[in-house]
Amino acid sequence: MIAATALTEADDMTKHATRRQMLRAGLAGAGLAAASTAAQAQDYITPAMTTPGRPFSGYGMPASYEAGVKRLVGTPGISPGTGSSRTPLEMLEGIITPSGLHYERHHNGIPDIDPATHRLLIHGLVDRPLEFSMDALMRYPRISQIHFLECGGNSGANSGPNPAQLTAGGIHGLLSCSEWTGVALGPLLDEAGLKPDGKWMIAESGDAANISRSIPLAEARAHGILALFQNGERLRPEQGYPVRLLMPGWEGNLNIKWLHRLKVTTMPGMTKDETSKYTQLQTDGKARQFNFIMPVKSVITRPSGGMTMQGAGYYEISGVAWSGHGAITKLEVSLDGGKSWTDAEMPGPVLPRALTRFRLPWEWDGNATTIMSRATDEAGNVQPTHAEWMKQFTPVQGYQNNGIQCWQIGADNSVKNTYA
Amino acid sequence: MIAATALTEADDMTKHATRRQMLRAGLAGAGLAAASTAAQAQDYITPAMTTPGRPFSGYGMPASYEAGVKRLVGTPGISPGTGSSRTPLEMLEGIITPSGLHYERHHNGIPDIDPATHRLLIHGLVDRPLEFSMDALMRYPRISQIHFLECGGNSGANSGPNPAQLTAGGIHGLLSCSEWTGVALGPLLDEAGLKPDGKWMIAESGDAANISRSIPLAEARAHGILALFQNGERLRPEQGYPVRLLMPGWEGNLNIKWLHRLKVTTMPGMTKDETSKYTQLQTDGKARQFNFIMPVKSVITRPSGGMTMQGAGYYEISGVAWSGHGAITKLEVSLDGGKSWTDAEMPGPVLPRALTRFRLPWEWDGNATTIMSRATDEAGNVQPTHAEWMKQFTPVQGYQNNGIQCWQIGADNSVKNTYA
Repeated sequence: MIAATALTEADDMTKHATRRQMLRAGLAGAGLAAASTAAQAQDYITPAMTTPGRPFSGYGMPASYEAGVKRLVGTPGISPGTGSSRTPLEMLEGIITPSGLHYERHHNGIPDIDPATHRLLIHGLVDRPLEFSMDALMRYPRISQIHFLECGGNSGANSGPNPAQLTAGGIHGLLSCSEWTGVALGPLLDEAGLKPDGKWMIAESGDAANISRSIPLAEARAHGILALFQNGERLRPEQGYPVRLLMPGWEGNLNIKWLHRLKVTTMPGMTKDETSKYTQLQTDGKARQFNFIMPVKSVITRPSGGMTMQGAGYYEISGVAWSGHGAITKLEVSLDGGKSWTDAEMPGPVLPRALTRFRLPWEWDGNATTIMSRATDEAGNVQPTHAEWMKQFTPVQGYQNNGIQCWQIGADNSVKNTYA
Repeated sequence: MIAATALTEADDMTKHATRRQMLRAGLAGAGLAAASTAAQAQDYITPAMTTPGRPFSGYGMPASYEAGVKRLVGTPGISPGTGSSRTPLEMLEGIITPSGLHYERHHNGIPDIDPATHRLLIHGLVDRPLEFSMDALMRYPRISQIHFLECGGNSGANSGPNPAQLTAGGIHGLLSCSEWTGVALGPLLDEAGLKPDGKWMIAESGDAANISRSIPLAEARAHGILALFQNGERLRPEQGYPVRLLMPGWEGNLNIKWLHRLKVTTMPGMTKDETSKYTQLQTDGKARQFNFIMPVKSVITRPSGGMTMQGAGYYEISGVAWSGHGAITKLEVSLDGGKSWTDAEMPGPVLPRALTRFRLPWEWDGNATTIMSRATDEAGNVQPTHAEWMKQFTPVQGYQNNGIQCWQIGADNSVKNTYA
């Protein structure tokens, strides 16, 4: 039940299906001390109201009481800059990820790059190689778009034989969403002058991992953005300052951070980052390579793994859905282990290749059950079940796992990861 | 011109109207050292590529090179928590303001409020006074919406006799835009049970300034949101942690921060904050009081006051537009001091009561001119000229100044505030 304190009276604990009645049910009999009276309300003074507060600041930070809302940093190994940190999805709301909590996936740490000296080179099969200072890039026309970024390895924990008992962020938190602003890549490639035999573009990062990925040139020209701003301000160092390649809806690692060089070629580079990693080994022994676009997916973030229910009563089920193929068109929720499905609300904004928030009111009867969400995108892709996804790929690889996330809710108020 | 370096050849400086040709023009003859060769490009190594970067962090911050991107904090007086800090609009992009740069307007500093002890009281002309803990509020159904907030005193610098030579943020930066998530107020008022003679609601803050504003009850019930999250994470202390009232599109001070009490009454409270401040004295001697909704407005942020042009050549004109009455439907730009107007692009998202980004390519001939923007909203309101706005109100008050902002561009590359 929702634990507001009715100061003067209590209501019957009614359990009805309408939203208003659910609220009424939640408000009743909360059992909190209701000692306040109307007289007290006349004199409703707190310590904060009698002490001047602290002054202004140039750049604000979260409240000290929210210190636990942090990225989940993986255990560092011998190479402390190699690994990831995850967005705590279950603690967040809406569709924008605050930049301080955007997930990280680095292969050799975060470089310290002075924008005054950084250059971006476009070369290879072009008529005229071009080198851009950041000041030069800043003078081009800009575009702003809200897009998710998701690591290809996100949700890999769900590719193991047993469901890992982690939070929503712990499993799916290599996922964030920002408003990106930058320069369209197409006109810059055209300025360099693409030679007819140029079919691919190798994008290279300017960090010590030297990530290099091959991208079909036509796709880069049509959709690529040289991102300079994130959520209004310049890119954060962890997201590629001073410039990153953005390929909206594409696997995270293709969105090359600290972008340093774009080389136009006839063939893909077959770089270390697309041969030793980021290919999907199937159960038939063949591998999918250059599997660029992140598939349709969703996750219920509230309630989710590791949370404690507060007994029978009203809950809002909420989460996020996304697809690299465009906008989400449908989000269904099952509250009975997949037997029946209900359309959740997506109040918007519903934007292509962006996180989309969904919500569904739920009156829980307190009995054990399993809840899950299933997204459909505008290309008609439907999120597969965990079992369907596992049938396609060997357990040794976990890239692009978009199987439906099921949360098992116990009569003991526990919420656990389960595969069905 | 745009200063990319053409490594192998230079182009004629053509000046044509199409975007692609403007880019080509910009790319030519930049005069930067073009010493790089194709051989050098094969070996394009920087120091950052040879040194492991720094490791992961729980909560990220902007790059050290962006330390100058800060809120503009007013000079503190004898009461250091009284005043404002402004969003540096001209340094930002897109529509989302990073929470660290959201403007501040405090009357007695930022209180330190523990959400575990904070309560919100709804009382007065209700059947059943209710007191909400923050945990209780967090269990209600939520809504997420992107909305601007603007101080009623924003742009007051433009109400003086002479145009102040300030930046766009210095004049108009009591303006920010966030994705807010919270609980709809209407159902909570209904739960308390509104008595028939309740017509107003007095909202009171829990800080030492004890800001109190009167809001028509029907409006509060229809549009009020108890905001708990800002750009995905919990509210920042400067924006009302742990809960603020959000009245989308309404004057900033009505969006009571650190919300502590909502009292239903028959009449407005005539509080200090709506009698000594936030009323508009007109030139006819009468004052407008309870003038809630922020009017339609826009400002070109690039180029803007204090910037230095880089000579004739390509520029993107960009800025933001907003209205408390709904969505922006039209944004016109004049490049010739108001003689002719061109529709700018608004690539979206164009959301009601949110900042809307506009863009227009411009080939500047290097001659002195004045540029300005004029917004129209879905209710048909058109932004007035500075002179039209000044005619209505006495110079001694500067609330809700939405006169058109003109920037005078000099042949000496200066950009200055001007009134016409």
